[in-house]
Amino acid sequence: MQDKMRKILDKNREKIQYGNLPTYIPELNKAKKDALGIYISMLDGTEVGAGDYEYKFTIQSISKVITLLIALEDRGPEYVFGKVGMEPTGDAFNSMMKLEIVRPSKPFNPMINAGAIAVTSMIKGNTQAERIKRIMDFFKLVTQNPDLRINESVYMSEKQTGDRNRAMAYFMKDVGIIETDVEESLDLYFKQCSIEVTCKDIARIGLFLSNDGKLQSTGEQLISPTYSRMAKAFMVTCGMYNASGEFAINVGIPAKSGVGGGIMAVAPGKMGIGVLGPSLDEKGNSIAGREVLKDFSDEFNLSIF
Amino acid sequence: MQDKMRKILDKNREKIQYGNLPTYIPELNKAKKDALGIYISMLDGTEVGAGDYEYKFTIQSISKVITLLIALEDRGPEYVFGKVGMEPTGDAFNSMMKLEIVRPSKPFNPMINAGAIAVTSMIKGNTQAERIKRIMDFFKLVTQNPDLRINESVYMSEKQTGDRNRAMAYFMKDVGIIETDVEESLDLYFKQCSIEVTCKDIARIGLFLSNDGKLQSTGEQLISPTYSRMAKAFMVTCGMYNASGEFAINVGIPAKSGVGGGIMAVAPGKMGIGVLGPSLDEKGNSIAGREVLKDFSDEFNLSIF
Amino acid sequence: MQDKMRKILDKNREKIQYGNLPTYIPELNKAKKDALGIYISMLDGTEVGAGDYEYKFTIQSISKVITLLIALEDRGPEYVFGKVGMEPTGDAFNSMMKLEIVRPSKPFNPMINAGAIAVTSMIKGNTQAERIKRIMDFFKLVTQNPDLRINESVYMSEKQTGDRNRAMAYFMKDVGIIETDVEESLDLYFKQCSIEVTCKDIARIGLFLSNDGKLQSTGEQLISPTYSRMAKAFMVTCGMYNASGEFAINVGIPAKSGVGGGIMAVAPGKMGIGVLGPSLDEKGNSIAGREVLKDFSDEFNLSIF
Amino acid sequence: MQDKMRKILDKNREKIQYGNLPTYIPELNKAKKDALGIYISMLDGTEVGAGDYEYKFTIQSISKVITLLIALEDRGPEYVFGKVGMEPTGDAFNSMMKLEIVRPSKPFNPMINAGAIAVTSMIKGNTQAERIKRIMDFFKLVTQNPDLRINESVYMSEKQTGDRNRAMAYFMKDVGIIETDVEESLDLYFKQCSIEVTCKDIARIGLFLSNDGKLQSTGEQLISPTYSRMAKAFMVTCGMYNASGEFAINVGIPAKSGVGGGIMAVAPGKMGIGVLGPSLDEKGNSIAGREVLKDFSDEFNLSIF
Repeated sequence: MQDKMRKILDKNREKIQYGNLPTYIPELNKAKKDALGIYISMLDGTEVGAGDYEYKFTIQSISKVITLLIALEDRGPEYVFGKVGMEPTGDAFNSMMKLEIVRPSKPFNPMINAGAIAVTSMIKGNTQAERIKRIMDFFKLVTQNPDLRINESVYMSEKQTGDRNRAMAYFMKDVGIIETDVEESLDLYFKQCSIEVTCKDIARIGLFLSNDGKLQSTGEQLISPTYSRMAKAFMVTCGMYNASGEFAINVGIPAKSGVGGGIMAVAPGKMGIGVLGPSLDEKGNSIAGREVLKDFSDEFNLSIF
Repeated sequence: MQDKMRKILDKNREKIQYGNLPTYIPELNKAKKDALGIYISMLDGTEVGAGDYEYKFTIQSISKVITLLIALEDRGPEYVFGKVGMEPTGDAFNSMMKLEIVRPSKPFNPMINAGAIAVTSMIKGNTQAERIKRIMDFFKLVTQNPDLRINESVYMSEKQTGDRNRAMAYFMKDVGIIETDVEESLDLYFKQCSIEVTCKDIARIGLFLSNDGKLQSTGEQLISPTYSRMAKAFMVTCGMYNASGEFAINVGIPAKSGVGGGIMAVAPGKMGIGVLGPSLDEKGNSIAGREVLKDFSDEFNLSIF
Repeated sequence: MQDKMRKILDKNREKIQYGNLPTYIPELNKAKKDALGIYISMLDGTEVGAGDYEYKFTIQSISKVITLLIALEDRGPEYVFGKVGMEPTGDAFNSMMKLEIVRPSKPFNPMINAGAIAVTSMIKGNTQAERIKRIMDFFKLVTQNPDLRINESVYMSEKQTGDRNRAMAYFMKDVGIIETDVEESLDLYFKQCSIEVTCKDIARIGLFLSNDGKLQSTGEQLISPTYSRMAKAFMVTCGMYNASGEFAINVGIPAKSGVGGGIMAVAPGKMGIGVLGPSLDEKGNSIAGREVLKDFSDEFNLSIF
Repeated sequence: MQDKMRKILDKNREKIQYGNLPTYIPELNKAKKDALGIYISMLDGTEVGAGDYEYKFTIQSISKVITLLIALEDRGPEYVFGKVGMEPTGDAFNSMMKLEIVRPSKPFNPMINAGAIAVTSMIKGNTQAERIKRIMDFFKLVTQNPDLRINESVYMSEKQTGDRNRAMAYFMKDVGIIETDVEESLDLYFKQCSIEVTCKDIARIGLFLSNDGKLQSTGEQLISPTYSRMAKAFMVTCGMYNASGEFAINVGIPAKSGVGGGIMAVAPGKMGIGVLGPSLDEKGNSIAGREVLKDFSDEFNLSIF
């Protein structure tokens, strides 16, 4: 297994040069551009890694899947989907246009920034500290990694350069989608995006979803299987930004990417997969990572279609 | 099995009243609004039907899946996806907006009208008659129904009222996506939409896709498994118009609807499902049909997620 | 003259009932809905008023014309129009859509909110206090009214409910159109909108423009005639929100409306006109006021076309 | 006068190199790129020309002003503006987007292609031949040029390459804006655009508008002064495609351009002006022509603001 994984990494390493590190969050631009790693975590407990699977990066948009699960548990689907839609958009992850064109105004889904910020604003907690603690605790449980922490430099960098996200949030405040304090919700969002992880951590998130919301270690049903399936469906229709369709068609497994270079993927009932490659294509997905996943999915026949 | 299917139909029959027959194609408005039927065709040869599964309706947009398969075989994915994209749009099926906003101009996917018309224009044949014959022959083979025919009244009705489709086609001609004669391509498109089918016929199309492009009867690999998987991925991301996301999240199986009231669904590796209910929701999907599929999928645990 | 003015007011008073007070800024909802007044200030020094021409209201968007003039003097047209365009949009005054669709991102003109906020952010001053003083001084000079003041309740109301404007401003910060502190620029903008005026005051602003930027009282050329003409051109193409075209076609004089119910109009080389009627049509223009101006323009043959 | 006109031409001749002949109508690409001419026709009967004022070109979009006048006389403003709006759009002349976004669907004004095609479809006549004869007769009368004719090569070229216009027309047919035969209306539109004129001819059209719809030669009131003023207002708000705002602000006179390189301008109550320069800027306006008009307007102080 590890051999095959190494071969797949080696085959796709040359793709790195065709992508770029993101520049709009300056701190992300400091990543090791040619890092490339993969880690899998299987339902039977087996775990295998290859390449830079211990390299640390920030989770970024991959966190949107977890906060969606928490919000669904906190508020129920009727409330959540009353404020955030279920449809892919075809637009860039930071697009606001549909907020204005479509009536009633509503972010199209929880995987674009607008929708994810709205979802984060729904997470319960009496204080900001309690809310971030709830998010961190959930992440630590699912990744089985008590040492997870927020990368403060990235968090500060996001906060300082987050004016597009701020624009979306104030728009949503104006139309009543965000009911809480805008700056607090944004702060929470910037923090969740800045959690530092490895391929191993995100593979464990994938494992959790492949196991329908049950912790593999303890057997505890942490999240309803229905919500877990919803999350996987969102990953297929909108998980890879506005290249989600192409990924579904060419790779065929639920996946969520982040501009930190990570991709968290799920083979339902089989395993979670974590891939890292900080060099991004123009849509914000790891350029080598997405090819590694394609080859891995083909090799082990993981397509859900 | 048939008992459970009947129960599911009965449970959802009351949804019919909340939908409407389409008015923009006058001939479709003559359908029996309260027809409701389901048919399944399984990989082991078993077939079961309940309700109005022999009621005839026109295939409409469900045909888009088949013409995509033919075009992929005729031209290869590089050519097809060079002209038609792979992404869901979030817009209505007859929307043209993205053709203008996004550069280069390209219909977003083969399931919206613009993309489907472009795909139809790619089907090979020396004459118009040959092209329509190729399409009909393919349908007859896959449905195992040599009696399939075009409903002439519906076809004429579509042709006379097809000005929005005509607008899209001329726009695509202008930007070079359609390279053939516009009126001929439209004519072919109107004809393919007017093929008269039953639940049984479309269940067989679903079976064909669940069997990865192999005819269940003869074992012949009619279409490459890769193209068959592509078709199923498109069905998940864009098969139910701009309610595809919701359907993926709530039902979780590849499906393609048509304004004739049919929905063709696939449980990969298991079965094809044909459902009919001419009363449509505001997005153009069978209002009772989509609930029937949800209950059926839940009952038999068919979700791919 | 005054008789004719009274007759025009009386004739159009019944239009008031078809409009509404704005609800999105709660404080504006407290205005006297059936107030109706007109005041003219002519180049030869004659001034005539009729109806509620001494009723106080907030200037709102009419202020955009003045801050444009100040910014043009402060920065010059190359800088100003490098960041804010010259074209009408066809969209609502609070629309952000074109900021995203059109590249490079740029508010279309200084009369829509996004453009006006950007223009306000260009006004020079070492401190926020200095900037607002400069704006107020300019207004006092042009209106010959040293008692002008900001309505604090309206200002607070605007600030508290200004999330759509905040969204625009952060978007423009993100793309580099706003270079100063966003909240300070917004604060200045909310203040300028909350200046309390009467028909007399805005008629004097019109007079100033009709006199090509020269103060009628002292003969001082306060603003370059070129900038004054630019302002009048903007009033024709974009002064009445997305009903500007209709107003140009039916009335034919430069005019700028505000959601406080005022309309400031100019008959170049002749006079300034101030009209008030707080009941607004659905596009945000005084519903009776715009008819009063039409009748007045017809009666005295003021169309520039 | 003629001297000053020559100097203005000479000064702006160097702009020609920064523009291009249009390529999307192949026949227009054959024009003499460096032709440059101006002609004025004054209310007192004086006429003066300079440069290539006898060079023939096709009238293109300038014809939209005339067909609007005919349609207003044929149908009245209520009917015309019930189907075509009065607002500038901010979009390109061949944009269709707003037809889809804005409800009810309606072209924004009669100066963009969609609106002009709709207006042309309103012109009365029992036969296609009668309709084109009515248009031609009107042109001949206003230009005092009985020899006006349609350039058949340009007409054929437009017809063959007019698929974007065809797309708009079918869209408008679909939503009920066009009530006549689409291909006939398009044919009429392509013909009106292909009328061959000189600077002299279009200066006479300008004269007619500057004289409020009265023929200067005979004193006959051919068109209501109201409609004539409407036309001039449209020219200011939308006459120069999506550079109309800029032109109003920098030049300040009603003008209508065509991709044949002509610009027809009006100094109300004074004169009509015809300018030619086939080299176009990226928005479709004569690149040298628009500068010539600016200098001419400045020199003779023609701004209406």
